[in-house]
Parts: sequence; structure tokens; C-alpha cells
Amino acid sequence: MAAALIANGEIATVKSPATGRYASVYSEVQSSRLDHPLPLPSVLKNTFKVVDGPPSSAAGNPDEIAKLFPSVFGQPSAMLVPGASGDTPTVQGLKIGVVLSGGQAPGGHNVISGIFDYLQDRCKGSTLYGFRGGPAGIMKCKYVILTPEYIYPYRNQGGFDMICSGRDKIETPEQFKQAEETALKLDLDGLVVIGGDDSNTNACLLAENFRSKNLKTRVIGCPKTIDGDLKCKEVPISFGFDTACKIYSEMIGNVMVDARSTGKYYHFVRLMGRAASHITLECALQTHPNITLIGEEVAANKQTLKSVTDYIADVICKRAELGYNYGVILIPEGLIDFIPEVQHLIAELNEILANETVDEAGLWKKKLEPQSLHLFELLPSAIKDQLMLERDPHGNVQVAKIETEKMLIQMVETELELRKQGGVYKGHFKGQSHFFGYEGRCGLPSNFDATYCYALGYAAGALLETGKTGLISSVGNLAAPVEEWTVGGTALTSLMDVERRHGKFKPVIKKAMVELEGAPFKKFASMREEWALNNRYINPGPIQFVGPASYKCNHTLELELGAQV
Amino acid sequence: MAAALIANGEIATVKSPATGRYASVYSEVQSSRLDHPLPLPSVLKNTFKVVDGPPSSAAGNPDEIAKLFPSVFGQPSAMLVPGASGDTPTVQGLKIGVVLSGGQAPGGHNVISGIFDYLQDRCKGSTLYGFRGGPAGIMKCKYVILTPEYIYPYRNQGGFDMICSGRDKIETPEQFKQAEETALKLDLDGLVVIGGDDSNTNACLLAENFRSKNLKTRVIGCPKTIDGDLKCKEVPISFGFDTACKIYSEMIGNVMVDARSTGKYYHFVRLMGRAASHITLECALQTHPNITLIGEEVAANKQTLKSVTDYIADVICKRAELGYNYGVILIPEGLIDFIPEVQHLIAELNEILANETVDEAGLWKKKLEPQSLHLFELLPSAIKDQLMLERDPHGNVQVAKIETEKMLIQMVETELELRKQGGVYKGHFKGQSHFFGYEGRCGLPSNFDATYCYALGYAAGALLETGKTGLISSVGNLAAPVEEWTVGGTALTSLMDVERRHGKFKPVIKKAMVELEGAPFKKFASMREEWALNNRYINPGPIQFVGPASYKCNHTLELELGAQV
Repeated sequence: MAAALIANGEIATVKSPATGRYASVYSEVQSSRLDHPLPLPSVLKNTFKVVDGPPSSAAGNPDEIAKLFPSVFGQPSAMLVPGASGDTPTVQGLKIGVVLSGGQAPGGHNVISGIFDYLQDRCKGSTLYGFRGGPAGIMKCKYVILTPEYIYPYRNQGGFDMICSGRDKIETPEQFKQAEETALKLDLDGLVVIGGDDSNTNACLLAENFRSKNLKTRVIGCPKTIDGDLKCKEVPISFGFDTACKIYSEMIGNVMVDARSTGKYYHFVRLMGRAASHITLECALQTHPNITLIGEEVAANKQTLKSVTDYIADVICKRAELGYNYGVILIPEGLIDFIPEVQHLIAELNEILANETVDEAGLWKKKLEPQSLHLFELLPSAIKDQLMLERDPHGNVQVAKIETEKMLIQMVETELELRKQGGVYKGHFKGQSHFFGYEGRCGLPSNFDATYCYALGYAAGALLETGKTGLISSVGNLAAPVEEWTVGGTALTSLMDVERRHGKFKPVIKKAMVELEGAPFKKFASMREEWALNNRYINPGPIQFVGPASYKCNHTLELELGAQV
Repeated sequence: MAAALIANGEIATVKSPATGRYASVYSEVQSSRLDHPLPLPSVLKNTFKVVDGPPSSAAGNPDEIAKLFPSVFGQPSAMLVPGASGDTPTVQGLKIGVVLSGGQAPGGHNVISGIFDYLQDRCKGSTLYGFRGGPAGIMKCKYVILTPEYIYPYRNQGGFDMICSGRDKIETPEQFKQAEETALKLDLDGLVVIGGDDSNTNACLLAENFRSKNLKTRVIGCPKTIDGDLKCKEVPISFGFDTACKIYSEMIGNVMVDARSTGKYYHFVRLMGRAASHITLECALQTHPNITLIGEEVAANKQTLKSVTDYIADVICKRAELGYNYGVILIPEGLIDFIPEVQHLIAELNEILANETVDEAGLWKKKLEPQSLHLFELLPSAIKDQLMLERDPHGNVQVAKIETEKMLIQMVETELELRKQGGVYKGHFKGQSHFFGYEGRCGLPSNFDATYCYALGYAAGALLETGKTGLISSVGNLAAPVEEWTVGGTALTSLMDVERRHGKFKPVIKKAMVELEGAPFKKFASMREEWALNNRYINPGPIQFVGPASYKCNHTLELELGAQV
């Protein structure tokens, strides 16, 4: 099929069977990925049986989780093990739906390919429905029937454009009703939800809902997020993290060589990842920057914006004494969410801006608590303006829009100017800002993500065929060769805790934050002083699909798996 | 040597022979590049002789150029051709200097490796001095002696960190005197200047100066700039352009897949390259964006900021009617330098800001000409603030600091809002801004740049050995296999014209702008309507060093060479 696709040896147009239009044009590298072979864990290549573990509990408040999920709470984890020839079920003609939910992550297409191939290989006569545009596609029953021809051009390709994604949630009784109608209309045996923590919580609510209504439709989740904050013992990593971090690290490595060559810029690089700092930590381990801010540590140490600024300025001063007036600094996108005083200021601003008129003379500022006023005055004027002027439709300050890297450059500049006047800093400082985000969400999946995602999808197929619901597809033992990877499913309720919102308990899969006692952070912490003053930059280079480093996975996973041993 | 370098199979520390300190730490991909074999053009592998062409002239005003370069003007181009065994000179013990000048470009280290290897292979007992930190290193006689051990860790690596670069120029009589002193002190037979148009102009001035003073030191230039604006018939491309464009195109391709997957963002991507739009054009040919602005065309059509905005808004409106509320737009860094009215406004602002007090009420604006005032009022307020507040030490508006992509997002947003009110636009618009610049200057050189640079350096060695001066190293016939590449040198004066500055003629190598009648632009122009409304995105993926696409060069060069045939 590749031969037909790759016209004139280089670029090909791929006709969409659904629309009859040419859907895409491929580069040589994209084309070369289409037939990249994907090894499967041994257990999925042969007959298997499912072994259930002991009943599960919850990550917190099991009593409340049990009340919220009466039909699926307490389910055991499932593990696939080699079976005799009669063990593997021979269900035929399954009707399965699949949906991509939330932000893009490299490898999503391979999860779908894995589900599809499982059905083709093991459940003859099955149909795979791809719901279009995320959960809204389920509610509106908007789908495409996935065929070999439809799926082929997306194999090992980045993006979610095969069926696209969306951020809608299935939450209200009406929305659940719509999902039920779709499940009934298509006679769905199962549904795979590919998403992050929220989407997997939603998947579990759907599983509960379908089961409580005695619908046959089973629901399996798959762990997706470049942020790396959806993981647990049985789910060692979310897919997309590996590729995204490698793309960001390529760019950081290039900027590092530039910094060292030019000798006159400090590059402040903000990296995607709002809730947790896994991406920043992983990129630091890959590239060895001079300064890395980890949100979880900033919060644990109750740091202030001033103390963060001072820390950066201290390193810059020490480097200046060594003759280095350049460097690279990594900043997690969510940094200021981790600084308590900033959260405090923003809450006060939202209150004041909602109720007071803001006078030019600045009298409104007297409404701020002294500590918040002090912080506000410390902010660069561009940031002040942004806080005051650019508010969301509810009138709230838009924290997400603050360009933290630019704010820090200005604050560090001011601090260094003071130190220069005080005679303690004799260097020269020029900041350059970068934000690496969208570049990493849709890259061609690394070999690791391509293989891992395919196994996740294939496993989801196996779980659905064996009648499981409310589980998240779990592929483990990732430090070993693919053949030895373990395959199973983990009760989604076992990952959950409750949060109190609007006087009600809401189930949430707790985000996995950077553990300050975890192996990746400890490795980083043991090396950062060395990286700060000496230059130990590493340039990982572009992701390679063949040859050197093409089968290397990320440091975070390696260190976490190593620590488990 | 690689084995010793690559400790534990993955990451190695490289000890700097100069400082005795560990200079660098290598990733697996970096390490794998160290021993990447570099083929040479056949003519450089065997005995050769130099054939001189006819006397040369200048790109413009030959009489003035002849006056400015009395000693080197009119030199013939030199071509290396296969020779008999006696033809190749057997000079020994040459003393050669090399300097990197200006901004980084991938491949600089390979030029140095090429010179070094030439001297090792052909001129036993030679010494290569690497001047540190750019032309200032020549003036201060700050150098390192390059040895095999010193050079090895930089082979096929990005960056200029082997000897670093700088932006100083050798211009004044005192500075020329310093350069002479260095040449005499080190008894230099030759000097290779690796740089862009300004640096090569400077190289020619040095050649002239040395020859007029009867110094034996000859000077050869090498064409370096990611911007791609230093080229001519004999020098088909400047090095670094290929790699930088591939890195930017990787990122653009990823953003395109993201745009298509999400379906809700217009990505405005500003690309490095201030004077000419070659980078933007090449990236467009590699990725097929919906809109591409080419500065040279904007200037030729005498477009205004409003007409550029309208063009973008028109495409967005048409796409909205087709159901596409997303897209990717490429913008050259120097866009506003190509818009006459903006230049006019900035000139007026500089005048006013220098002489008037800027009153809060805005009375100062009355000093602006009506057309400029109109344009000023059209600008988003953040840009107005930037123009008024952030001025350079001379009080001038800092055009280079304007984030054109953000400015255009705001202007397009305003325009679309008007059209929405007028009922002619029913889509929804959200802009995301990107700047890709520093990421591309120091990436690991592509196989093309690695090979091309090595040949350029090797050729520079040959030109110096055969007694040439005032030439730029020229490697041609690049569409053919490396073995068939041609090698020679082109008189730097033949690339020059004069500009009148402060009442004096100054020699300049004219920047090669995007030719609107050239093959690359015409190819783009023939396809852009198709790209605008249909989605023909291509994701080139990360640069591969082995396997598919690893030996592909860029479209600009291929099209230009194809058009020559």
C-alpha cells in the first residue's frame, strides 16, 4: 500500500476515503513512517487469558468513590497472561467506538491503529467507529467507520487529525442521555476514551452510567497527555510525553549551543505543562541547563516571586565571576500557579476589579493587602498592564496568558541592575525569551511512543473483548524489551479521590505531580549545582527514527522504573 | 577516537585540550555524528591544478570598486581541475588563521575541519590558528592552535563554540594596523574568514590591505549565513541555510498538524531572516502553509500594513466559508522593513521623539504627517507603546524588537471583528504567535551542510596553498553527486557594489534578495492559492541523519539549480 501512496518517491497525496478529497500530502519522512514495524508484547501475540487481581480501592476517600461509582467501584485489576488455546475468547462482530479527548499528544493515531488491528486480528467482522471532534462526537453521534484504507495514512503519524479531538465533557444528565442514545443506536459493545485525567474520569463515569442502565457498552480509558501527570504504578507513563520532551529538548539543546557560541544571552525557556513540571524536569535531564525551576519544589519551599528572582540572579552573578555571561533557564508554564503569594494577589485583584472602579491615580490599590500591594509594585509594568487590562469574559485576570519567561527576564534585569549599583555584579545581562508548546504536541511519534501506543490500543481491544469496563489500559515492565512488556487494565476508580466543588463531591483522578523524593527529581537535584556553574549542556539533536538513539526512551521513565527495581 | 570519547555507550565528556577542563557532554546523536564520513569532490581527492578565468568586474560601479581595491580588483575566478602529478603544489609548513564572523550557522565547524584536513593531507607541517571570538581575536591576536584532538569533538557538530564568533569589524586604520601586527607576529601565510556579506566585504578589505602593504598573508572568504542572502552564480548557497530551514520546517510542520487536529487556531509564525525572505520562502516550499508573506513581494507591490492585514483577513474569511477556522501563516522577521509607510512612520517618530516632549494628551501626534498619523492610529496599543517607550541608546525606535506576528494577530482580529459586524465573516478567530529563530542557528548540521561546509573549507585550503587572495571559496554543481561538485574561488570584488554613506563610497556585497522571477518564488506563487484554501500541509519531520530523506537538500537550491540547467 505504501508503494501506491508514495508517488514519485517522495511526496504523496492521500485521498480520504471518507470525503473523497485529498486529505494530506506527505514528506519523505512521514511516508517512511507508515510501514514502520510495531512489535507487540508477546502476551498479545499469542493466546492469552485474563487474570483478575484482588478488589481495588481508591486513591483517597474510598467511601465517597464507592458511592459515586456503585456499579464499577472495587473492580480488580486485570492482567493478561499466556493461555491455552481455549482461553482466548473468540468473540466476533464487536461494535466498538473510539474517541480522542483533550489536547493532542503524539501517538494517538497508533492507539486507534492498535484497537483496529486487534479487532481485525482477533474479532472478525467487527466495526470500529471513530467519533469525530472529541466527546461531542459521541453526544451528537458524529462518527466515521474506520477501515484499513482510512487508518493507513495515519499510522505512526503525529496529530489527532484522523478523527480530531475536543474538550467537551459528558457531565449533565442530558449529556449522559445523549451518549446512551448513541451507544444504543450503534449497538456499541465498547468505547475507548483516549484522554488525560479529566477524560479518564469521564470515561469511568460513562462506564458507571452504562452499567447502571444495564447497557452492554463497556468503556476503557487510555492514558494520554504530553504533561506526563497521568500515571500510577500500573500506568508508568502517559503517551506523548516521550516525543514532546524530545522535541523540546532538541530545541533547548540547539539554544544551548547558540548560547555558548554567542556568549552573551540568557535564554529563558518556558515549557508547556501547567499543572505539573514533569516536562521541564525531563528536558532538564536531557539537556543540563544552568537553571531549572520545578513548580512542585517552588511550592514546597513556599518560595516567593522575589526569592525565585534572587535564585536566578545569584546563579547569574556566580557565572559572571567565572566569565560566563550566558546561560539557559527552563521554566514550567505553570510556575506562578505554584507561588502562593501570586495566587493570593490574583484572587484579590479579581475581587477588586469586579467591584471597584480602577482610578488612574491608583487609589484602588489601597484595597490590596500590604503583602499583595508589595508584590504588585514589584511586577514589571507590562505584566501589571496585562493583569489589569486583559481579562477573560468573566472579568477574571488571565493567569494563563502571563508570559512568565518575559516577566522573569524583567525582574532579573531589575535585580541585577541593583546589584550592579551595589558593586556585587559586574557582568552584562541580556535575556531572550522562548515558549515551546504547540511544536511538541503533534510531532511524529518517537519509536517509543509509536510502540507504546500501539500496545495500549491493542490492549484496550483485548480488555473490551474480555468484557472489561471502567479500566484504563495498562502496559508495564517498559524497561524490558517490548516482548516482555506486561499488559492489563487498572480500575479507574482505584486512581480516584474526591474534591469538594459547589458543595458536592466530585471524583477526580489525582494528577501525578513531580515527587521531590522521586528518582528523577533526586537525580536532577544532585546535578544542578554542577550544571549551574559549569557548562554541561547536552544537545540531544532531532529525534531519529533509525540508527543511533532511535530506541532510547526518556530519562523520567528510566529513572522511575530503575528506582522501582 | 570515538570509542574513547563515548563512555558508557551513550554520553561522553570531552576534555578540552586547551583548558584541560571538560568542555562538553555529548548525546548519543551528537556522538554518532563525530565519525560521520564526509565525501570530497573528486577534484579535491586527486592532484589538481588551478585554471584562472577571465578578469572579473564588479556587481555595480566597477570604477569605484576598482578605486577601493586597487590591488585585488579584477582578479579572475579560479577553478580547480584535475592535474598531472607535478601540477599540485607541494608547499609545506603553511601558517593559516581562521575566524568565524557574525551569527551562527550550522556547519561552521566543518569548514574549519575542512581547512585543517587539507593542511594535514597536503601541506605537512602546517599550523592552523583559530582566532577566538570573531575578528576581535585577529586584532587582539587571541587564538588557539588547532590540533586533531582539539578539532575532533566539533566535527559535524552545530554551533560556533570551537573558537566562538563575534560581530566586530576591522575598519579603521588602527584596526587594520592591529590585524597586520597579528599577521606579522604569527607569520601568517593566509587567513580564512567565515562569514556573511559584511564579513566577506571585510575579508576583501583585509586582502587588499595585506597585499598593498606587501604582506604575504592571503585572505579567502567562506559564504556563511542561515539567511541565504549571500549567493551568486558561483556560490549557489550559503551554508547553514539548509539546516536552519529544515529545523524551522520541522516545527512548522508540527504546528500545522496541531492546527488541523485542533481546528481552532491560526498560528502566526515569524521566522528569522531580517534582510531577505529566503528562509520564509524555503519553509513555505517545505510545508505548504495557508499564507506566506514574502517581504520582497510586499515591497514590489508597495503594500501597506492595511493591505497585508486585508490579504490575511480575506483568506481567513474564505477558509471560514469552507468550514476551516484554523491555519498557519508564515511571516519573515523583516516584514515591516519592506513596508514603505512603516519606514516612513518610524523615521518621523525618531525625529519627533528626539526633539519634542511627548505629552500625555497626544498633542505631539500633530507633528506626524497625516498618512503616518493614520497608520499610527491603526497600530495596536501594545505596539504603539513599544514604539514610544522602548528605544535604543540613541533614542531610536527599535524596529527589530517589534513582534510582527503579534501585531498582525491584533490587526487581523480587529479587521475580522469589523467584517463580523458587517455580516461578511461568520467564523471564529484565535491567533497563536510563534518566533522560530535561535533554535535553528546551532542545530546539528544536515548531511548536506556537513558535506558542503567540509568541501568549502577544503577548497579554501587549496586556494590559499595555490597563492590566491581576495576570493570566496566556491563549490558548485551541487545538484550532482558530491564527486562531481566543482571547486574554485570567486573574486570577492566581483560580488561588490558601492553604497554612499556619510558622503563616502563604501563597498558592499549586495545581499541576494528573493527574486520574484526566480524559480523558487514562481513555484510558490503557482501553488499558494491551492495551499490557502485547501490544506496541503506537509510535515517534514525531524532532520534524519541516516535513512529516508537524510540526503535531501532544500527546495530553493534544487529549484535554482534546476532553473539554471
